[in-house]
Amino acid sequence: MEAMARWQPGARERLQTAALERFAQQGYEGTTVAEIAATAGLTERTFFRHFADKREVLFSGQEEFARVFVAAVDEAEGDDAMSIIATALATATSSLFPGERRSWSRARQAVIDADPSLQERELLKLSALAVAMTSALRRRGISATAATLAAESGVAVFRVAFTGWIAAGEERSFGELLRAVFAELRSLVDTV
Amino acid sequence: MEAMARWQPGARERLQTAALERFAQQGYEGTTVAEIAATAGLTERTFFRHFADKREVLFSGQEEFARVFVAAVDEAEGDDAMSIIATALATATSSLFPGERRSWSRARQAVIDADPSLQERELLKLSALAVAMTSALRRRGISATAATLAAESGVAVFRVAFTGWIAAGEERSFGELLRAVFAELRSLVDTV
Repeated sequence: MEAMARWQPGARERLQTAALERFAQQGYEGTTVAEIAATAGLTERTFFRHFADKREVLFSGQEEFARVFVAAVDEAEGDDAMSIIATALATATSSLFPGERRSWSRARQAVIDADPSLQERELLKLSALAVAMTSALRRRGISATAATLAAESGVAVFRVAFTGWIAAGEERSFGELLRAVFAELRSLVDTV
Repeated sequence: MEAMARWQPGARERLQTAALERFAQQGYEGTTVAEIAATAGLTERTFFRHFADKREVLFSGQEEFARVFVAAVDEAEGDDAMSIIATALATATSSLFPGERRSWSRARQAVIDADPSLQERELLKLSALAVAMTSALRRRGISATAATLAAESGVAVFRVAFTGWIAAGEERSFGELLRAVFAELRSLVDTV
């Protein structure tokens, strides 16, 4: 009955944890799917039931990621582009980045920072996020210029807040960091 | 004497013009180096003396591009991150995007907009620009947060201004558009 897939409780999470552990120890390129599966005490077959390839361990859920932000833009109260984006970022990150997610995010980012091809992949993911939020703002009747500027600056704010959030010893919530970074952006822009 | 490269006056520019013409007519993917060379009335050998491959016709000078912006950040007067970036963008774009460059830039962008792999390439180029400007600001003693925010928002402003600059019928200079976009960013950020 080889086609019968036994369900492995928590297999996906075990594979993700095992992968991050291996990537941290021996690098992303130097790690095989077989090693990840073995570390998790699972088979390669089980690995490929959950992930298309090694990279997907780090980037699975990307569509869901963008969808959460876009839904937050759709639902945010307010009329002007940047308030909508600020509200949307706060809503989306409170659901995507709760405190218990911080150590996973930190470990994942360390793996990405060590590999140029993963950095490009992450960059394209964030750029796709900016494009998706721009479209969501346009659907709300915001002009192309304001929508692009707000979404792109919003992603810049998100990135800086994220970097702060995963910094060693940081205990503030993502939302608190977003507010601090938006305040800094405002003071920076006011000097021009 | 096959190793003796005859110098072709204006060959590089002729090849670039021919490439854009072909890309516009039959798509980037659907164009060969042989066709570009033939359109320019030159040989493939001459093409490869000027460009490593077809893509480089669109992306040659990328290091020089970033260098002009970084030099402008190094030399801009002022102490705060965003004023430095605003001054640097004005200086760099006035040298890189004079009025006579507009139709080339417009044609190049149309080719890029039609091809997802070129879009990714362009995105990585602009991201590298943000990283280079962030480092240049850090060397001037600006904090990591302010440097990242200013450089990333600066690139967002650059992109919006560039899109405006190449829009059909637009006659304002790049510098005028940058000022308008910075003003819009200020008003957007002030609402948060």
